[in-house]
Amino acid sequence: MEFTHLNKEGRARMVDVSGKDDTLREAIAAGFIYMKKETLDRVAEGTIKKGDVLSVAQVGGIMGAKNTPNIIPMCHPIMITGCDIKFNISHEHQRIEITATVKNVGQTGVEMEALTAVSVAALTIYDMCKAIDKEMVISDIMLIKKSGGKSGLFERKG
Amino acid sequence: MEFTHLNKEGRARMVDVSGKDDTLREAIAAGFIYMKKETLDRVAEGTIKKGDVLSVAQVGGIMGAKNTPNIIPMCHPIMITGCDIKFNISHEHQRIEITATVKNVGQTGVEMEALTAVSVAALTIYDMCKAIDKEMVISDIMLIKKSGGKSGLFERKG
Amino acid sequence: MEFTHLNKEGRARMVDVSGKDDTLREAIAAGFIYMKKETLDRVAEGTIKKGDVLSVAQVGGIMGAKNTPNIIPMCHPIMITGCDIKFNISHEHQRIEITATVKNVGQTGVEMEALTAVSVAALTIYDMCKAIDKEMVISDIMLIKKSGGKSGLFERKG
Amino acid sequence: MEFTHLNKEGRARMVDVSGKDDTLREAIAAGFIYMKKETLDRVAEGTIKKGDVLSVAQVGGIMGAKNTPNIIPMCHPIMITGCDIKFNISHEHQRIEITATVKNVGQTGVEMEALTAVSVAALTIYDMCKAIDKEMVISDIMLIKKSGGKSGLFERKG
Amino acid sequence: MEFTHLNKEGRARMVDVSGKDDTLREAIAAGFIYMKKETLDRVAEGTIKKGDVLSVAQVGGIMGAKNTPNIIPMCHPIMITGCDIKFNISHEHQRIEITATVKNVGQTGVEMEALTAVSVAALTIYDMCKAIDKEMVISDIMLIKKSGGKSGLFERKG
Amino acid sequence: MEFTHLNKEGRARMVDVSGKDDTLREAIAAGFIYMKKETLDRVAEGTIKKGDVLSVAQVGGIMGAKNTPNIIPMCHPIMITGCDIKFNISHEHQRIEITATVKNVGQTGVEMEALTAVSVAALTIYDMCKAIDKEMVISDIMLIKKSGGKSGLFERKG
Repeated sequence: MEFTHLNKEGRARMVDVSGKDDTLREAIAAGFIYMKKETLDRVAEGTIKKGDVLSVAQVGGIMGAKNTPNIIPMCHPIMITGCDIKFNISHEHQRIEITATVKNVGQTGVEMEALTAVSVAALTIYDMCKAIDKEMVISDIMLIKKSGGKSGLFERKG
Repeated sequence: MEFTHLNKEGRARMVDVSGKDDTLREAIAAGFIYMKKETLDRVAEGTIKKGDVLSVAQVGGIMGAKNTPNIIPMCHPIMITGCDIKFNISHEHQRIEITATVKNVGQTGVEMEALTAVSVAALTIYDMCKAIDKEMVISDIMLIKKSGGKSGLFERKG
Repeated sequence: MEFTHLNKEGRARMVDVSGKDDTLREAIAAGFIYMKKETLDRVAEGTIKKGDVLSVAQVGGIMGAKNTPNIIPMCHPIMITGCDIKFNISHEHQRIEITATVKNVGQTGVEMEALTAVSVAALTIYDMCKAIDKEMVISDIMLIKKSGGKSGLFERKG
Repeated sequence: MEFTHLNKEGRARMVDVSGKDDTLREAIAAGFIYMKKETLDRVAEGTIKKGDVLSVAQVGGIMGAKNTPNIIPMCHPIMITGCDIKFNISHEHQRIEITATVKNVGQTGVEMEALTAVSVAALTIYDMCKAIDKEMVISDIMLIKKSGGKSGLFERKG
Repeated sequence: MEFTHLNKEGRARMVDVSGKDDTLREAIAAGFIYMKKETLDRVAEGTIKKGDVLSVAQVGGIMGAKNTPNIIPMCHPIMITGCDIKFNISHEHQRIEITATVKNVGQTGVEMEALTAVSVAALTIYDMCKAIDKEMVISDIMLIKKSGGKSGLFERKG
Repeated sequence: MEFTHLNKEGRARMVDVSGKDDTLREAIAAGFIYMKKETLDRVAEGTIKKGDVLSVAQVGGIMGAKNTPNIIPMCHPIMITGCDIKFNISHEHQRIEITATVKNVGQTGVEMEALTAVSVAALTIYDMCKAIDKEMVISDIMLIKKSGGKSGLFERKG
């Protein structure tokens, strides 16, 4: 298989999707941010109050999904038709799981939008907690599932 | 320690740094993107040609560093004075290590800019290789070192 | 009725409009900026010259309409297909009325684009006159009419 | 007094502030959004839950303050050093009062940043409640106070 | 023929394209950047190495094409479906020819996107070479060809 | 002389200007847009009316100058302290001369901001006249003068 982003001169191009059909597409991405026990406790407390860390990360992630074509150089402009982000706090693993679901109806999919939403949500959590913990780690950002388009369904195993 | 981003009503605010001194600040962040052997081989081949994946990721990461205050909701606007990104391909670990160094002279530091540069560079690599590999994983994005400002030097152990 | 922007966890999401039809949609919003008699006279004089305050406000408002999805966190990206702004100077009421009309063909409407266009046009007038008048007031920004989409026609009474 | 934004040809320019001193500057702006009793009740309920309307408006307003030079055509780029937004719900007047405080250390002030923060916060509230109330009105956006810079202290009377 | 961008009051508007059909559209624009012999030699050498000037200009130009509606005030938002940029180094004429091809499927064309891609690619080359040559000249940026839409085919003669 | 934008690996970086002094800097750039006699007459007529082509180009160019670090990949973020654009219509040469002057006080200069302002103003004129003339040509965009900073005064000869 060839890299689709290379033109005849071997330089990067934005792949031509003009001939593709508009189909309903969905992508789900996930990732984790690991932090100290005390930091996680503080974030978890906040979730029962207004103005908490995860509310800001939710907004940051959704705006990141919309902003993807400005952030990722070769991404096509896309009008996403829906975006949701979920957080799952695990005290056992000292981490927050972030899952983003993005939808669109168009000629190209929303994998990058979902991955960017997760990344920006994680970075936002880092930003808001960094005064008390500089050793947080963002890990295992990956595509979980995508559907729609010519390449069809993808589901990550295990 | 308190979360500095919370106002009296418990809502998010942008922390007031007006009284802080302008100092030279530097932050180094790093992270990895893991991929299939064949994908890594293809990226590695490209690095000896023009228009390679890592050149685009380099540009994406640097623009991401500049763009950080628009991406991360509570980040202060900052005029970074320098940004460099390095890639280290490890065939043994089937991964590319991404290291970003960002500098500024100002009232607040550039940790978020360095972490965002690494994240955007990793997402750009994902974007350009996703036609041949959807199972890449972005991991271990972390702050390696920061210097300057009131909190002084931070260096990650191990 | 429920807030459509809340997910099951009670957090904000971008509402899923994937299943909606593309229809022609139009929204009209209006608002006022009140100012001192002398300020208004100066603006009114300018309208018969090139480079006047209202020309800049016109451009600011139209770019604001395009920029709405970046400004308003939960707004869907939209490709507006037309935007016009009108100004009506009333010496009697010492105010300028701003009316914005925005159109699109899509799955979601342009009310926010019209309201944002009015707001940005008003803020631009404020910016350009603030050296001579800091007491201007922006008021009564409201949706006048919207058509198209499932919820159909809305017209503000009175 | 002359409009400072006009060049010799009578066209708009960005005023030259190169010779001005860097001083600490602060601006406070305020405004209201009026809504139906039921809408206000729904917003008020939300403030005791995570993911409420006002948390998103808080983030929208702060990002709007940062984004001001991109939104208002003749505004100087500014690095704001702090931004906070407060909401005051009045059931009696069926309205939410929005107050934004912005600070910077620079050659030009942050009045427009404070007014833009209030406007974007109000528009965000509108966006998130418009499914249940299209007749909300945004009113009385005005500068309350500014300090710093050559023109010194301004405080709105009454 | 009338200027289509003027409303009844003689002010600028974004032209209403709501009634137009979605068609496949393509635009090709070109231009040149002239530079000293030694500068051109340095750029030409770089094209056989990673990280060369033209790789960055390629990315800058493609991102410029996507960014056109934010850069050009009255441009409609557009979702381009493909973008490619080619460079042709002429040692004889001491210049680099830049050619951009942009495609979309929509109600309005991509001439401005192609012209903006060429302009931004040229400016990027200038930026990266200005430390060794401040006398470069960007010239002859023009539309070469456009197809699709009501006005049909345009091809520049000569 | 070496390309300053290349790191040790031969990839692009944002040059480190952390150690440079803040000085007053100014740059002047110029360029032309050539058009048919009738198009030029139409633009010239407009300059005596509100809402003319050149007013919009003026705003586009100034916003372009502010936007330069987002448009040009390796440009440093800069807070410009002033920007003015002048147009000179020559019926004899069937062209409009565009001259942009940009100032800042900082560690790096504003050549790119001035060149970008001219380019965006020219593209905006093209955009607004393209319905009646597709053969306009943008030419001879060049740096006329720069002052301030370590490299000192540059003035283009001839």
